[in-house]
Amino acid sequence: MPSPRAPGWQGSSSRDPGQPCGGDSPRSSSVINNYLDASEPVSLEARLSRMHFHDNQRKVDYVLAYHYRKRGAHLAQGSPGHSLAIISNGERGKEPHAGGPGDIELGPLDALEEERKEQREEFEHNLMEAGLELEKDLENKSQGSIFVRIHAPWQVLAREAEFLKIKVPIKKEMYEIKAGGSIAKKFSAVLQKLSSPLQPRVPEHSNNKMKNLSYPFSREKMYLYNIQEKDTFFDNATRSRIVHEILKRTVCSRANNMMGINSLIANNIYEAAYPLHDGEYDSPEDDMNDRKLLYQEWARYGVFYKFQPIDLIRKYFGEKIGLYFAWLGLYTSFLIPPSVIGVIVFLYGCATIEEDIPSREMCDQQNVFTMCPLCDKSCDYWNLNSACGTARASHLFDNTATVFFSIFMALWATMFLENWKRLQMRLGYFWDLTGIEEEEEHSRPEYETKVREKMLKESNKSAVQKLDTNTTGCDNEDDEDKLTWKDRFPGYLMNFASILFMIALTFSIVFGVIVYRITTAAALSLNKATRSNVRVTVTATAVIINLVVILILDEIYGAVAKWLTKIEVPKTEQTFEERLILKAFLLKFVNAYSPIFYVAFFKGRFVGRPGSYVYVFDGYRMEECAPGGCLMELCIQLSIIMLGKQLIQNNIFEIGVPKLKKLFRKLKDETEAGETDSAHSKHPEQWDLDYSLEPYTGLTPEYMEMIIQFGFVTLFVASFPLAPLFALLNNVIEVRLDAKKFVTELRRPDAVRTKDIGIWFDILSGIGKFSVISNAFVIAITSDFIPRLVYQYSYSHNGTLHGFVNHTLSFFNVSQLKEGTQPENSQFDQEVQFCRFKDYREPPWAPNPYEFSKQYWLVLSARLAFVIIFQNLVMFLSVLVDWMIPDIPTDISDQIKKEKSLLVDFFLKEEHEKLKLMDEPALRSPGGGDRSRSRAASSAPSGQSQPGSVISSSSQHTNV
Amino acid sequence: MPSPRAPGWQGSSSRDPGQPCGGDSPRSSSVINNYLDASEPVSLEARLSRMHFHDNQRKVDYVLAYHYRKRGAHLAQGSPGHSLAIISNGERGKEPHAGGPGDIELGPLDALEEERKEQREEFEHNLMEAGLELEKDLENKSQGSIFVRIHAPWQVLAREAEFLKIKVPIKKEMYEIKAGGSIAKKFSAVLQKLSSPLQPRVPEHSNNKMKNLSYPFSREKMYLYNIQEKDTFFDNATRSRIVHEILKRTVCSRANNMMGINSLIANNIYEAAYPLHDGEYDSPEDDMNDRKLLYQEWARYGVFYKFQPIDLIRKYFGEKIGLYFAWLGLYTSFLIPPSVIGVIVFLYGCATIEEDIPSREMCDQQNVFTMCPLCDKSCDYWNLNSACGTARASHLFDNTATVFFSIFMALWATMFLENWKRLQMRLGYFWDLTGIEEEEEHSRPEYETKVREKMLKESNKSAVQKLDTNTTGCDNEDDEDKLTWKDRFPGYLMNFASILFMIALTFSIVFGVIVYRITTAAALSLNKATRSNVRVTVTATAVIINLVVILILDEIYGAVAKWLTKIEVPKTEQTFEERLILKAFLLKFVNAYSPIFYVAFFKGRFVGRPGSYVYVFDGYRMEECAPGGCLMELCIQLSIIMLGKQLIQNNIFEIGVPKLKKLFRKLKDETEAGETDSAHSKHPEQWDLDYSLEPYTGLTPEYMEMIIQFGFVTLFVASFPLAPLFALLNNVIEVRLDAKKFVTELRRPDAVRTKDIGIWFDILSGIGKFSVISNAFVIAITSDFIPRLVYQYSYSHNGTLHGFVNHTLSFFNVSQLKEGTQPENSQFDQEVQFCRFKDYREPPWAPNPYEFSKQYWLVLSARLAFVIIFQNLVMFLSVLVDWMIPDIPTDISDQIKKEKSLLVDFFLKEEHEKLKLMDEPALRSPGGGDRSRSRAASSAPSGQSQPGSVISSSSQHTNV
Repeated sequence: MPSPRAPGWQGSSSRDPGQPCGGDSPRSSSVINNYLDASEPVSLEARLSRMHFHDNQRKVDYVLAYHYRKRGAHLAQGSPGHSLAIISNGERGKEPHAGGPGDIELGPLDALEEERKEQREEFEHNLMEAGLELEKDLENKSQGSIFVRIHAPWQVLAREAEFLKIKVPIKKEMYEIKAGGSIAKKFSAVLQKLSSPLQPRVPEHSNNKMKNLSYPFSREKMYLYNIQEKDTFFDNATRSRIVHEILKRTVCSRANNMMGINSLIANNIYEAAYPLHDGEYDSPEDDMNDRKLLYQEWARYGVFYKFQPIDLIRKYFGEKIGLYFAWLGLYTSFLIPPSVIGVIVFLYGCATIEEDIPSREMCDQQNVFTMCPLCDKSCDYWNLNSACGTARASHLFDNTATVFFSIFMALWATMFLENWKRLQMRLGYFWDLTGIEEEEEHSRPEYETKVREKMLKESNKSAVQKLDTNTTGCDNEDDEDKLTWKDRFPGYLMNFASILFMIALTFSIVFGVIVYRITTAAALSLNKATRSNVRVTVTATAVIINLVVILILDEIYGAVAKWLTKIEVPKTEQTFEERLILKAFLLKFVNAYSPIFYVAFFKGRFVGRPGSYVYVFDGYRMEECAPGGCLMELCIQLSIIMLGKQLIQNNIFEIGVPKLKKLFRKLKDETEAGETDSAHSKHPEQWDLDYSLEPYTGLTPEYMEMIIQFGFVTLFVASFPLAPLFALLNNVIEVRLDAKKFVTELRRPDAVRTKDIGIWFDILSGIGKFSVISNAFVIAITSDFIPRLVYQYSYSHNGTLHGFVNHTLSFFNVSQLKEGTQPENSQFDQEVQFCRFKDYREPPWAPNPYEFSKQYWLVLSARLAFVIIFQNLVMFLSVLVDWMIPDIPTDISDQIKKEKSLLVDFFLKEEHEKLKLMDEPALRSPGGGDRSRSRAASSAPSGQSQPGSVISSSSQHTNV
Repeated sequence: MPSPRAPGWQGSSSRDPGQPCGGDSPRSSSVINNYLDASEPVSLEARLSRMHFHDNQRKVDYVLAYHYRKRGAHLAQGSPGHSLAIISNGERGKEPHAGGPGDIELGPLDALEEERKEQREEFEHNLMEAGLELEKDLENKSQGSIFVRIHAPWQVLAREAEFLKIKVPIKKEMYEIKAGGSIAKKFSAVLQKLSSPLQPRVPEHSNNKMKNLSYPFSREKMYLYNIQEKDTFFDNATRSRIVHEILKRTVCSRANNMMGINSLIANNIYEAAYPLHDGEYDSPEDDMNDRKLLYQEWARYGVFYKFQPIDLIRKYFGEKIGLYFAWLGLYTSFLIPPSVIGVIVFLYGCATIEEDIPSREMCDQQNVFTMCPLCDKSCDYWNLNSACGTARASHLFDNTATVFFSIFMALWATMFLENWKRLQMRLGYFWDLTGIEEEEEHSRPEYETKVREKMLKESNKSAVQKLDTNTTGCDNEDDEDKLTWKDRFPGYLMNFASILFMIALTFSIVFGVIVYRITTAAALSLNKATRSNVRVTVTATAVIINLVVILILDEIYGAVAKWLTKIEVPKTEQTFEERLILKAFLLKFVNAYSPIFYVAFFKGRFVGRPGSYVYVFDGYRMEECAPGGCLMELCIQLSIIMLGKQLIQNNIFEIGVPKLKKLFRKLKDETEAGETDSAHSKHPEQWDLDYSLEPYTGLTPEYMEMIIQFGFVTLFVASFPLAPLFALLNNVIEVRLDAKKFVTELRRPDAVRTKDIGIWFDILSGIGKFSVISNAFVIAITSDFIPRLVYQYSYSHNGTLHGFVNHTLSFFNVSQLKEGTQPENSQFDQEVQFCRFKDYREPPWAPNPYEFSKQYWLVLSARLAFVIIFQNLVMFLSVLVDWMIPDIPTDISDQIKKEKSLLVDFFLKEEHEKLKLMDEPALRSPGGGDRSRSRAASSAPSGQSQPGSVISSSSQHTNV
């Protein structure tokens, strides 16, 4: 028994069909009796909308689609007019088509097809038992798609709404939401006026200051609600959600007691199940529907500057998707300040480039530093001022402003998350999500299959065991109906191993690219013609290789994560999603960031020193950073990977691939279904149109893309202050791209009620915390910020940075270069006795030459101290910000309190009136006498004490 | 209008009292008509229990007490037998005593007394309007305490239980809670058997594996619940909670529309309000009540080894106090592992003391290090081996095991918090707290007074303004009924300034103690006789001064925090409590820990070096740590403060002071109420007994004490591994001490429903996080762990610590001592050229003598690197632990799901049966015909489609 709910719900499904209960009752209205339609087909044009049953009355709330194929097809082709099938569901096993006018002589169907057909029939029968009404076309061709249209009548809606505790507005007049004080009110009025061109022109949006009091729907309290028309009381999304809820819990006993439509789809019994879109988004007529409105005011690039009509999105797509777009909108608007400040920081770098003493010193032609050769043999000594360009460029990103910018960004991340919590609360309040409980989750079909397999095996085993010993074998009874840790162990192990392998793969690819860089650089520097451009060529090609690898692995890892999660067999859809997200995030994160982490923290740190370089694959020296510092290279790496990833993923994966897929589907459909009559495609029904769209597969890829981008924006912002700007530009497009996809290219998703964005929030806040540490290290370790400070305050004679470059360079006695590593054919214009290299080491003339010098340890102490201070300071500030900003906006919490007391007020009034009504007859009845007082009061509920009666009785009292 | 709920609730309170509605109805049962009692007084002995009205029927659920005093007292003394007053509440203003048998000739009462009396009468009248029943003694003496006993009849209980959504068990049979797999089951059975002597012998405790399905009480669904007797369906705590709820929201319009009993108590209109205890805890008879049970099984030192009967505590005292004791119990049991490990770490230190090379080197008589003098002039050079003792003692606490112990403790803190979350969830599940909403909070009386004052001022001002200009003056309408930031600013400023002042005070006291230490040490070392014991004397006296100051300031700061919070005028009781806790915590934390922080991180760091010491108040050198390191001193400081605080606070403040208070109260009562008849005190009523107890004032001091202790246990555990042990010993006593207090010494507190321990959890987790950083610094900075490691791996010739002591000591050329600071009359037995001091500085013969040496920076880098690694590693591990342990125990979340589906099942069955019942008459009525199908179905709710009818109609279908 897969769920304890099932038997109670369908208690009557197993009873004798011949039972007389309601046998020939006239109440057959719930069954689709479509002879009328069959004999007098309503022309398609005459119908009000293509979203109703053929009686033009009942709205199609959900569609199930399946593909059928039969051998005796040619016999039935004669009567295309009678295209509607009868859904009669009385006695199962009996051929339902028998006696109908479109009667088909049954050919010998395939066994599998036959079985599926029976399962479908049982399922549809069960749906009707649950109160739903169905309509379905006849299978009058040899093969084709059949759409089962489902309509939920009022009583089903009411029943389910009560169970699902759907909140609906109550009759009480709307009340206004107070907007702070008078100044705030004025200010918000001005703001609203200013922003009015940015507001989408959506009817609901105008009165976002009004809110209905709402209360969970209850059939006993019908008088509370303002039910004007039962057909439209619940909106389309709610209706389809209710139907989906029934579909999810309906059992098909023929199909191994599988529960829910998802299991049936997974077993190919049905092909698809989707609610209908509200109409066409590009219909030329005037008839406005929500989908068209969304398209015009939201899902076009033309309206990129406008706010999103979040309430309408939520109304149409449900809370989960509404929250995604609200989150995306908030994120995008939160990117504006860091973009602006990032540009300012960059401009500050540009403006102060001339004043930067270290780069001026490096570029100074008189200040000659003879540097040690960058590679063995083929490289020559070189002058530091040849690296003048990179030094100047490096200053653009490596200046004091960057430190403050990265503190700002850490706080920004906290602020963003706090504001998201607030917005979430606000939306939760307006969307009546406060206090919803988590919906009961059904097991995933895969899980159930696995459990069934296990039970089968167990029962076999215990049967064998029972032959041996009769005592044991019953111990594991409890474990049989669920998967224990033992059952899952292989899956977990596989997961663990695969993830380790994938991460190792990523690292080895990063290492491969490093090796490529080292060897290519070495090879190129042999050739004199290419030598000058070595660094540029190698860096550029390596980054592009990195980018391509990241993009490819990204797709592979997505698939691998899915596969791994399937292996794990999580119980519910929600755990499946969470685990998939975690795995995919881990893999994609490592994939996207490992080359960047390498450049930021490891590159150039294992070089060794002249005379004792570190070699890999003997003969190749480990690579160094450019003389301007690794920060410049980090910046290049980051910008190329970030921009490349965004551009390519947006353009190719999000626009190109779906188009190709669609084209492919179309071609396939055309070749396959060549015999479909063309009349049908001229006036396609809404379900036909929707069927041709892509199915909705969840928000994970959308979130994932944004989260990885969030990482680019926060993790290394100290090295690339323009990242927020690029992210902003990307997101302005991304919002509309996603919107377009949802409105025009996907089947309508089921409206899912959810309070928050779930695990994504945890991931975001994890990235936020990690960014504090990573920025601390970038500033302390990668940038020259700390060495400069130390020089300025400990070594400089006059408190300026004059002499800093000299201070950072150590001396090396060229005579101590190892045999065979001296530059061949040195063309350097002067005799070299000492060459310089960038490190803090003792000079050759010291007692312990080339050991790390005191400066080295001093600078290291300063760097580490900076990390500690920065990390703890920023974390403390974040906690402070977190604590200062209340999670629930004050106006909302006031409002919630007020609403609660209004509700209590309302109910107390009702209570009072009810009691009054009850009171009057009670007065006339001979109640307990005066002397029988308290005993009667405490035992008989009819003798209720009421305010009114209390007052009056006291006057009587004094007379005694 | 203080609350929007008020008018709805008491809608009829203003109607004409002469109105005939129910005028002389016989339903006067809700009014206490006590002539019977007055004429035939039931003897006290004959009554069943002293917790009922005099009719022996109605239970006293709540008691209001007030003190009255009147001038015409002597006139009424004649009839002590008629001691029960009539509560007649009809027409206000009319003297209610008129006509009663105990009629009193009214003397001219004080105006204030008169007013209060009227307010009380109105309030009591309003309570009766709300349905409560009251009983009260006559004011027949010149002065005395009057108790108003309140009884809540069934209909009031039912109504309020519905509003408060109190969950009650439903009829469905209890179901067993599954205990994991079979092995787990066996294991738990064994465990239960083993722990059975530890279990308290409390009836509820035996079936803690069973749980009733429960559902919020609803009068419409009465059939759901198993109501056997209405008098006992709600337990005493729930009953008094319901009454308290009514008391809180009842308005007294005479008293400035004050809302709730708390405001009235604050205005001295009533003196006290409390529910009754369940009886006496030490009654000799056999009648067992919950209080007695609690006393016997919980609140005695004799049962200190037993588990706490948490469910009974919750039943008796409510969820809030239940959670406190559950938390305290968990904390105490969680202290066991760290106590054991702490002892092991300590023993490890003892065992390895002989193998510790540095302390052996220090004690080695041959290894002579001539140390520089510890003070100017009067101190002599000294040999390091004279500090042998402290060095060896220091090893007890400063060894490798400590590092692992402090990592363990950081994880322990996380584990503790995680397990608390789980226990909280578990208790929440068993106590039916899942899904309770926050209760509506009423404003505090002080807040309302302030608002009223403001409104008055505003209206005066605007009246003045209106004379000037007629346009403005209405703008601030919205702000009038609440305090804005502007109104609160002075309070906030005062708070801020006072807290800063208090913290500065604490710091200056710490500094004062330092100065005391320095000067006393200097003074004592002048005298040769005392010189030898200087350090011990000074340290001991200083710590005792610190301890005394801490204890005194602790009390002062508690009062100051309360005062400051009052100044802030928070709106609700909850915000008041939260702010008070935050402030008190901040002040007490700073107070308790600042001397310890000083010793841990600052002492001995500003000493300077020989030849250029740092002086305070010229002439006094900054103090240094003992040669064994500051860790030893930290350990002494910590242990004395912690133990002293616990012992003194437990003994004096928690046992002594309440006893004194009680004594004082008793004395005062006796002198004041000398004229009270002694007959009354022989057989005191329960309300008399409870009135003589101390009022309950909240859990804040209990929590605060534990939290500060938690700080001692975690923050510096690296320096004092025995702290958990001492905390454990303290807490075993503390639990019973608190229990005793609650059971025997306090009035019964109102049962407060709460889901969690609120802000305390945040404070705990804050301390947990802070402890990671503080331990990192203690190990890195205070202990010698890092220098030893560095020496071992960078400087030692053979990888051992041989030579470490020499390495940590720098050389100083005594000829460079400043004039006048050389030791006078040096009696040192050899000629001193160089003396040694503990620091890493260049030797006198280096090019830059006395500068920090390379070793200094190397060690510093290592220390800082350790802090970074330790902090991030432990934080990462904590997050991992947090993430690995689900917040909701698996069995509980399974159970919750199961319970939900059982409930749904239950309701669906009910639904089904109801529909079936409705169905049968519907079948007989002439329903819509076959052809009118869908329209009828969707519009007429009577034509509901039902499973049964669907099946039957299909057979009819095929016949057409």
